[in-house]
Amino acid sequence: MSTPGQVIRCKAAVAWGPGRPLTIEEVQVAPPKTHEVRIKVIATSVCRADWAYLYAAGTGTKLRPFPLVLGHEAAGVVESIGPAVDRFSPGDRVIPLFQPNCGKQDRRCTAETVQRRKDWANAQVGVMADGTSRISCKSQQVYQYLGVASFSQYTVVSDASLAKIRDSVPLDKVCLLGCAVSTGYGAARNVCKVEKGSRCAVFGLGAVGLAAVMGCRAAGAERIIAVDYNPDLFDTARLLGATDCVNPKDHSEPVQRVLTQMTRGGVDYAMECAGSPFFMGAALESTSGGGGTCALVGWTEADAVEAVSVSAETILMGRTLKGTYFGDWEGVEGVEDLLDKYKKKQLKLDEFITHNLQLEQINKAFDYVNCRKSIRTVIRLWEGEATQTPAAL
Amino acid sequence: MSTPGQVIRCKAAVAWGPGRPLTIEEVQVAPPKTHEVRIKVIATSVCRADWAYLYAAGTGTKLRPFPLVLGHEAAGVVESIGPAVDRFSPGDRVIPLFQPNCGKQDRRCTAETVQRRKDWANAQVGVMADGTSRISCKSQQVYQYLGVASFSQYTVVSDASLAKIRDSVPLDKVCLLGCAVSTGYGAARNVCKVEKGSRCAVFGLGAVGLAAVMGCRAAGAERIIAVDYNPDLFDTARLLGATDCVNPKDHSEPVQRVLTQMTRGGVDYAMECAGSPFFMGAALESTSGGGGTCALVGWTEADAVEAVSVSAETILMGRTLKGTYFGDWEGVEGVEDLLDKYKKKQLKLDEFITHNLQLEQINKAFDYVNCRKSIRTVIRLWEGEATQTPAAL
Repeated sequence: MSTPGQVIRCKAAVAWGPGRPLTIEEVQVAPPKTHEVRIKVIATSVCRADWAYLYAAGTGTKLRPFPLVLGHEAAGVVESIGPAVDRFSPGDRVIPLFQPNCGKQDRRCTAETVQRRKDWANAQVGVMADGTSRISCKSQQVYQYLGVASFSQYTVVSDASLAKIRDSVPLDKVCLLGCAVSTGYGAARNVCKVEKGSRCAVFGLGAVGLAAVMGCRAAGAERIIAVDYNPDLFDTARLLGATDCVNPKDHSEPVQRVLTQMTRGGVDYAMECAGSPFFMGAALESTSGGGGTCALVGWTEADAVEAVSVSAETILMGRTLKGTYFGDWEGVEGVEDLLDKYKKKQLKLDEFITHNLQLEQINKAFDYVNCRKSIRTVIRLWEGEATQTPAAL
Repeated sequence: MSTPGQVIRCKAAVAWGPGRPLTIEEVQVAPPKTHEVRIKVIATSVCRADWAYLYAAGTGTKLRPFPLVLGHEAAGVVESIGPAVDRFSPGDRVIPLFQPNCGKQDRRCTAETVQRRKDWANAQVGVMADGTSRISCKSQQVYQYLGVASFSQYTVVSDASLAKIRDSVPLDKVCLLGCAVSTGYGAARNVCKVEKGSRCAVFGLGAVGLAAVMGCRAAGAERIIAVDYNPDLFDTARLLGATDCVNPKDHSEPVQRVLTQMTRGGVDYAMECAGSPFFMGAALESTSGGGGTCALVGWTEADAVEAVSVSAETILMGRTLKGTYFGDWEGVEGVEDLLDKYKKKQLKLDEFITHNLQLEQINKAFDYVNCRKSIRTVIRLWEGEATQTPAAL
């Protein structure tokens, strides 16, 4: 069957409403429009943000429309391209990105900036540039989470948010570069700009935090203190570079004080990777008063709107509090850099994958996220197919 | 009379307790000890922090010991030096600094860092390195505010916190480099690193804020929006470089929204120079979501311990919140740079001085601070003497 130009019928996990498990449905995926690319999703992982959108929606979370297809950390193969797409051809292996632009490079109000803000706003509400989605189910429009919607065997994405995979790397591993690993690693390298010999702390050892640990190690940090309430994660943290692991439960003093004492004055860089307002304050206060930097890296829907309360004095003493979205990578080029690092074995990805499941088992992956049983679960969209060597795709 | 090695009797304005006006007393100033320098204070200005220490003490403010001599923005002449002082000689014209070290350069726990932290802690409680003060009055030890105590005709300071004035510049102008102007100008240049063509907002048009406006102008900012509740300050703000002046009272919408609309998306750099937690939140939210930087610059004792509440999302979207103490100047070298800029007319100081008074009138200067009548009031410690040309000193 020749699919280009045709509506494709395929399987997707559809979210029908907040708090309800996903159901596997047959969906229709329309052909790509101008500057859009339709991709066959080979592998996707499940991020805490997917879980939070579904299960923490309404509890302090911005409500977005349902039904929708979640999933934003994926890798796939270009099936067809829409008009005006010149960087991609069918067969290209790609990683879709959930942000049209990192926002760092062009802060002036140019036409391009305006367009990017529009793309961003559209991605946030789950539609493409024309204000509609390309996925439908049971005659209903189905929104595309963050403009990606990778819990579907096919999806359509913007050509501006697509990184090309040039090397022979397994799609069911590099899909992790679509969100968590890039974000955490970038937090250490791009946001904090961790230096050789510096002292770092990473709060929260999910995939983002573990990637931040790896980033600190790659930057030559002398001390990397990994903090989590779950000691089961400490072995992986050590494998990725942590020099010390701290469970706040093991101490009667606040964790920020424990870290300040361990480092005789505070760390140079602290990265909050759990999306926890409690950890945010602790991370900031664990930095050195004279010039420490704290990056807020972890994002969960449920916490996103919560307030962090910081004493003005904590900041005034010379600390810096920074936020980041996607680790400050310059979008597509950033992910292409990371792919190169993975190929050269400078970046670990396989170590983050604790579970592999198929699309039909996706609710189990959500349970793992909820219970913090997994670091990353990779979902293969085509049953056994995704285990094929990439060359065969 | 030869004073070196002798206790000097002179006039000082002494603060005997919180909320009580200063009284002019005869004090005894002991000779300098190791690494200390005794200076004849020629001119000092009155900063909001001096006022707040006295009149906001106890209302959420850290209590420090009384009696003390306030004053930390000054210029004078070296009268004598203690043992191991090699950078200064009697007759040198100097500006004392209230911070032993900016803390930026050396964050590791070296012996030097430990010493600096000790110096810092001592300065905070008003004593010298040996834990005592050099000033006494009525047989009582009188603490030296921030290790300076410039509301005295003579004081003793650490040689590590003293900038040398090499050029022929008037002491009753360059005394302003001891705190506010350096802090505000540094906030724009060193902390925010304002770029050519960028859009800036400055909240609070006291001396710190006006100096921040001047710093933005020097950096080539395209738009400099000055915000204050007091429109009387707008002319000075414009003189120093403001392109727009906004009085929040003139708008029904929150000021951050007004600024966001004026700049179609938010400013690149916002500087909070009032020490107001309300302005802190507004300043942060007036920055651009994709990479805006907000610096907390204004420090007042009363507000220092208050909490700033920021939504985690505000930061996570890519904003940076930074604090600064003394505009991130590298202590002595920084002030020497600024002196050079003033001499070359690249930096304005005279424009900040709205009132000149003598030591006996110092409570009037405090009233001006309280009522925001002055930008800076310069106090001359030696009646008419400070108006002499510096060469004569």
